[in-house]
Amino acid sequence: MSTSSISMPQIQAPDQALAATLTDKINNKTKPLGSLGALEKLALKVGLIQNTLAPELKKPVMLVFAGDHGIVEAGVSPYPQAVTQQMVLNFLAGGAGINVFASQNDMAVRVIDAGVNHTFAAHPDLIDAKVGMGTRNFLLEPAMSMAQCQQALTRGARLAQHEIGQGSNVIGFGEMGIGNTSSAAALMAVICRQPVAACVGRGTGLDDAGLQKKTAVIEQAIKHHNLDSRDAAQVLATFGGFEIAMMAGAMLGAAEKNAVLLIDGFIATAALLVAAVMQPAILHYCVFCHRSDESGHRKLLELLKAEPLLDLGLRLGEGTGAALAYPLVQAAVNFLNGMASFESANVSRQVDA
Amino acid sequence: MSTSSISMPQIQAPDQALAATLTDKINNKTKPLGSLGALEKLALKVGLIQNTLAPELKKPVMLVFAGDHGIVEAGVSPYPQAVTQQMVLNFLAGGAGINVFASQNDMAVRVIDAGVNHTFAAHPDLIDAKVGMGTRNFLLEPAMSMAQCQQALTRGARLAQHEIGQGSNVIGFGEMGIGNTSSAAALMAVICRQPVAACVGRGTGLDDAGLQKKTAVIEQAIKHHNLDSRDAAQVLATFGGFEIAMMAGAMLGAAEKNAVLLIDGFIATAALLVAAVMQPAILHYCVFCHRSDESGHRKLLELLKAEPLLDLGLRLGEGTGAALAYPLVQAAVNFLNGMASFESANVSRQVDA
Repeated sequence: MSTSSISMPQIQAPDQALAATLTDKINNKTKPLGSLGALEKLALKVGLIQNTLAPELKKPVMLVFAGDHGIVEAGVSPYPQAVTQQMVLNFLAGGAGINVFASQNDMAVRVIDAGVNHTFAAHPDLIDAKVGMGTRNFLLEPAMSMAQCQQALTRGARLAQHEIGQGSNVIGFGEMGIGNTSSAAALMAVICRQPVAACVGRGTGLDDAGLQKKTAVIEQAIKHHNLDSRDAAQVLATFGGFEIAMMAGAMLGAAEKNAVLLIDGFIATAALLVAAVMQPAILHYCVFCHRSDESGHRKLLELLKAEPLLDLGLRLGEGTGAALAYPLVQAAVNFLNGMASFESANVSRQVDA
Repeated sequence: MSTSSISMPQIQAPDQALAATLTDKINNKTKPLGSLGALEKLALKVGLIQNTLAPELKKPVMLVFAGDHGIVEAGVSPYPQAVTQQMVLNFLAGGAGINVFASQNDMAVRVIDAGVNHTFAAHPDLIDAKVGMGTRNFLLEPAMSMAQCQQALTRGARLAQHEIGQGSNVIGFGEMGIGNTSSAAALMAVICRQPVAACVGRGTGLDDAGLQKKTAVIEQAIKHHNLDSRDAAQVLATFGGFEIAMMAGAMLGAAEKNAVLLIDGFIATAALLVAAVMQPAILHYCVFCHRSDESGHRKLLELLKAEPLLDLGLRLGEGTGAALAYPLVQAAVNFLNGMASFESANVSRQVDA
């Protein structure tokens, strides 16, 4: 594919050598063939990612990337920009949805300032990776420079690989950024060559007039920049947020090191879309955790041929859908390792099998 | 409604006095309005069941009821009847799917012999509540006598209430019984006045010919008995399994004591259907945990206006779908108790809210 000159981790698809043996192991568990549905596919996927018949999930961590968006000047969100930094402080205080769900599932949370329009005091749980004080307004000019985009991608990859170096092999991706559904919708519309109306949603709660305005703003911006949809790096730099670019880099960095990637909702999936244009093999490492209520997400998942685990009408972001789905990933690994086989439990097989 | 004379716990709908205050509490959490989707409805439901703004889930327990079915003589299952008792031993040894998923979620498992065609040696985790050595073949005669049906219901209610007496307030319902999808399909067809073809599925893995035969057998049995669909007790006695009747009783007993009921797949939902005809208010206490791949289940959930939490193509039974969904119930309670409010976190509200 054509991309602006940008350096990225190279992702290989997992070795498929164990596929048949893993499938046999799954089929020999004491259950009717295929009766664990999506969990069976998930067990196979994790086994292949880790290239083992006995996968383990270690030190799960949720990376929550925060950034501000110049496009909010155009009136695309019902919340003020200050909510981004207020929510970062809420994450650090442990009071947000992602804190509750990650804590329930023994998942660490790292809060990353990718580019919030606020200078935070140092905090042990806050990672300062700030690329700028929010992006520029993409209705008027590219959201970031190509150098900033490269910086965000590289920092993201390093952050993920740092966690893997500390022993993690399963990484969730979450975000916070007032205005970032506009950024994600623009990325999707350009890369997938979809009408903006098919990509845009109510975000944190726009009414009909607000939705119409948001759609018009994004349409105008896309027309203004008139990019080659195959140049993922330039599309990302033009419409992305710092948190989205850094998340895409983190996903690439995690997949390069064979981690299991927990993909959250619309924004995280848009970041993955960019990463997948750069390195298509990344999709082998992804668990699609939920189908968001944000209306572009259903279509985006379809385009990625992704079957998400949960469909609960969530649209909170922060990685909440990924944290909520994580017990199902654990369940897939646990049944593969923990259930008896027909032989070991002396259970009779299907008569005509 | 009309029922044969049978004594049942009386279920009242939960007090709705706290509904508005609970809704306010949910809406004041630091998240866009409604953005936790199904979890918000679930938090409200659990709060109302427990009649508190700060619900707690205590000592979750999965009751797995096992029983054998005379109808297997008619060739409705691809597995031999012996698998029921083999799987009971697998449960007791900790090797089945339900053991793995319950253990993951710190849920106790009780295995109940409601009527398996086998005499088990005593085991500390096995509850002997045997009503008979399997039901009779309902193609020829009622599966059980009305006295046996009453006995199964009463024992089930006592078992559930014993767990509640020990401190549990959330109870899952699972089952094992070769042939029991036939029993469940017959119950659904008669009570819901649906064609058998809309209720029947492949169970543990019937092929097309097997499915056709199963459908014909159930149609013939329903015609033979020609029951009043409103007489739930007689329908249950005629087509039910001992494990299904005991599960229905346990559900009624648990709801009477204001427990949260975790409803698993097709068989458990059929047991609930019977219980709900007897005591419609039981539905207020139910969390529908998943949509099974067994084809009658989708329709049965629709008829009950139930929105299940998971839809993963599962069709294993044993309570596995309920155990897998339990972390979502915990998440609903945890966000209600643990998330900050806009006020407590100093987060700005929606501009035009």
